[in-house]
Amino acid sequence: MSPSLFLTPADDRYFEDYVTGDIHRFGRIAVEEDEVISFAKRFDPQSFHTDADVARQGPFGGLIASGWHTAGLMMRLLTEHFLSSVASLGSPGIDELRWLKPVRPSDVLSLRVTIREAVPSRSKPDRGMVRSFIEVLNQSDDVVMTLVAMVLVGRRPAPLRQ
Amino acid sequence: MSPSLFLTPADDRYFEDYVTGDIHRFGRIAVEEDEVISFAKRFDPQSFHTDADVARQGPFGGLIASGWHTAGLMMRLLTEHFLSSVASLGSPGIDELRWLKPVRPSDVLSLRVTIREAVPSRSKPDRGMVRSFIEVLNQSDDVVMTLVAMVLVGRRPAPLRQ
Repeated sequence: MSPSLFLTPADDRYFEDYVTGDIHRFGRIAVEEDEVISFAKRFDPQSFHTDADVARQGPFGGLIASGWHTAGLMMRLLTEHFLSSVASLGSPGIDELRWLKPVRPSDVLSLRVTIREAVPSRSKPDRGMVRSFIEVLNQSDDVVMTLVAMVLVGRRPAPLRQ
Repeated sequence: MSPSLFLTPADDRYFEDYVTGDIHRFGRIAVEEDEVISFAKRFDPQSFHTDADVARQGPFGGLIASGWHTAGLMMRLLTEHFLSSVASLGSPGIDELRWLKPVRPSDVLSLRVTIREAVPSRSKPDRGMVRSFIEVLNQSDDVVMTLVAMVLVGRRPAPLRQ
């Protein structure tokens, strides 16, 4: 796996570090059956997410992770490898989220993130909007989920004058 | 709160029960600080989601729920009040998700779901696609999150001939 392209660590990462066209490839997180079930029991209690026996007879032929659980695992990888720990200002939203293939227990997920655009804010000069195309891949390099995410990121502060 | 408009219970709910233009208003789920923090520690470990003290100095002036946690709470209400328990075939995706206002511990969330269209599948005659506009509201009726969701739902089986 090629590494993330960032030249700066998360605690020195600002809007300027998100470069249009850059492709960041990173992360590794396992999908665990216990968590698939416990997540779904709380947030998405449909039997194909919560009960392996029922799921075998269901539309997916076995237990699959809630799409929201997959999104959560993706977010974990983004916070670990992509977002700034000092300049992240949250996200106004996402577009075109697609769950393309089932995610199953024992899958291992990683991310490929392509920076589509990075636009300084017109109204707030201390920040900019980064729009990225995110692909979630499994251990066979199948793309299981895609989305377009927006993130607000603070600009790098000007150096203090001596 | 007006109730869901469904005439059928979840275990007798099919594609035909999702009627274009219907507005379903339902649900009530509390946002709990413990869960805001535990969810974020696992899936979205940014300090404005995980640490109330740090969050007070941060961009939102206090602890806020991860947007993915809000999505999970929405999904819980959908499974309890909106989805079929016998004919739900999962979702290919969502569009235009927007996190409009911070969701904070002790908020109480509910949903307003407007059926935008319900289209029988051309390739698979046993199902159809339901596209809905979902608004997540807090206890003050502020809309905190919106999205357009697609759900595949099985059609009602023809009655057996005697």
